Amino acid sequence: MSGDLSRLSLNQATTKQWGVREAAEGCARAGIPWIGLWRDKVAETGLKESARIVRETGLKVSSLCRGGMFPAATEGERLARLDDNRRAVDEAAALGAEVLVLVCGAAPDRNIGAARSTVRDGVEALAPYAAAAGVLLGVEPLHPAFAADRSVICTLGEATGIVRLVGLPGVGVVVDAYHVWWDPALYEEIRRAAGAIVGFHVDDWPKGGGDPLLSRGLMGDGVIELRRMREAVESAGYHGPIEVEIFNEAVWATPGGEVLETIKRRYLEHVLDAMPAGEPL
Amino acid sequence: MSGDLSRLSLNQATTKQWGVREAAEGCARAGIPWIGLWRDKVAETGLKESARIVRETGLKVSSLCRGGMFPAATEGERLARLDDNRRAVDEAAALGAEVLVLVCGAAPDRNIGAARSTVRDGVEALAPYAAAAGVLLGVEPLHPAFAADRSVICTLGEATGIVRLVGLPGVGVVVDAYHVWWDPALYEEIRRAAGAIVGFHVDDWPKGGGDPLLSRGLMGDGVIELRRMREAVESAGYHGPIEVEIFNEAVWATPGGEVLETIKRRYLEHVLDAMPAGEPL
Repeated sequence: MSGDLSRLSLNQATTKQWGVREAAEGCARAGIPWIGLWRDKVAETGLKESARIVRETGLKVSSLCRGGMFPAATEGERLARLDDNRRAVDEAAALGAEVLVLVCGAAPDRNIGAARSTVRDGVEALAPYAAAAGVLLGVEPLHPAFAADRSVICTLGEATGIVRLVGLPGVGVVVDAYHVWWDPALYEEIRRAAGAIVGFHVDDWPKGGGDPLLSRGLMGDGVIELRRMREAVESAGYHGPIEVEIFNEAVWATPGGEVLETIKRRYLEHVLDAMPAGEPL
Repeated sequence: MSGDLSRLSLNQATTKQWGVREAAEGCARAGIPWIGLWRDKVAETGLKESARIVRETGLKVSSLCRGGMFPAATEGERLARLDDNRRAVDEAAALGAEVLVLVCGAAPDRNIGAARSTVRDGVEALAPYAAAAGVLLGVEPLHPAFAADRSVICTLGEATGIVRLVGLPGVGVVVDAYHVWWDPALYEEIRRAAGAIVGFHVDDWPKGGGDPLLSRGLMGDGVIELRRMREAVESAGYHGPIEVEIFNEAVWATPGGEVLETIKRRYLEHVLDAMPAGEPL
């Protein structure tokens, strides 16, 4: 397999079967230069040990997942979540992660508008702390299928709106293909986010339905125009790492080394190559 | 149970366990004055017989589901689908249905933009035929979770855009709470749709995830601000029937008469009553 893997990053959620060490060593073996880490996996291995592993394997850390979850039913709980976000910033700094990804959280009641305000306040409160630590914050809109459970921020337009409102350098958006592909305003919103994109995740949306949490596809297994989206994100000024993030039980049941070879191939074929939109599935 | 049921309509998808006769007689017994019919159920009973049943039970038919499905891989298939849509208009007219609901269809390839154009063309081609038959067309945006399989029209804004572009009387939008509740532009878009809303469906989005096709909740079982949405739709000029449309296997496994009593109670409590937003779940 030949092709430019210099921007490819393994988001650790793709290899849930592996801990930090296996994932980092797997990437090093496979020639994948970047890794996106998750806090729960880092906690299992230990923060210092995780930092040492990525240093020793020579990997760069594209992001740490995840901060966020700002809305809560009580003021006390909201403050506790801000504390946890500051710890996430510290961990990102210790790991040398470029970005802390923010999954913004669900409403504690039926008032989604109020929860959206809480998210804006939370990002604003966290931003100076992150800037001081040299960690970028990436507000990631999630697919509307997750609006009740994980994120009241459902569109790239909303995420960019928060970034512009907060108006501090070091706060940007993360574009994940699975979460935004359906949006009729997508390409307009990617242009509007120019200069503020701090991460790009690739995956795919397969036909056939099922639970959106666990039926995410490998690139090429679904309907998303990944090359077009990559080109749009590049036109908007983003030339950083491209994370492969697949939540999928079949992928988790496959030996990790095999998964890495597959994502390298799919990345080159479906994300990197220039091909016209509208080709047959 | 007391309260005004004059706008309540049973969408037949809620009582999949019943055919047209059982559903119509059930509504008549329960004091539900409206029914929304489905073409597959009408076909099982026969069109003439179905029309006779609703006439004899004294019900009004709020809508027929569904036309649409405009995009297709070949020109021949697109024309066949337009033919089928004309048959759906004829059936709606024969049943005395006020509205033919359009579920617009998925893209046959990865080009969602092209599929959206095909939908606009399809609605435009169908509109004069429907107008001549005295049947309103209702473009229903579906939740983005269905964008790959059922509808490339994912937002109320897009649906209203099609209606304004077609610019013919007799073409409007259907607002279904489950499909649009997450949209940060929802209330702005309801205002923008003023005068063009031809249907309002209620149901709920429960917390907890699962397959969005079959985990639709009864009103009150989820996070949607149903009263607020009803009031917004009324402010935009819609005062017609309110259909209860629940795709849910547990509801289908319950005796139909019991389902009807539950939806009457839930409708009065969660849709009709004036209550503040943000009350606890």
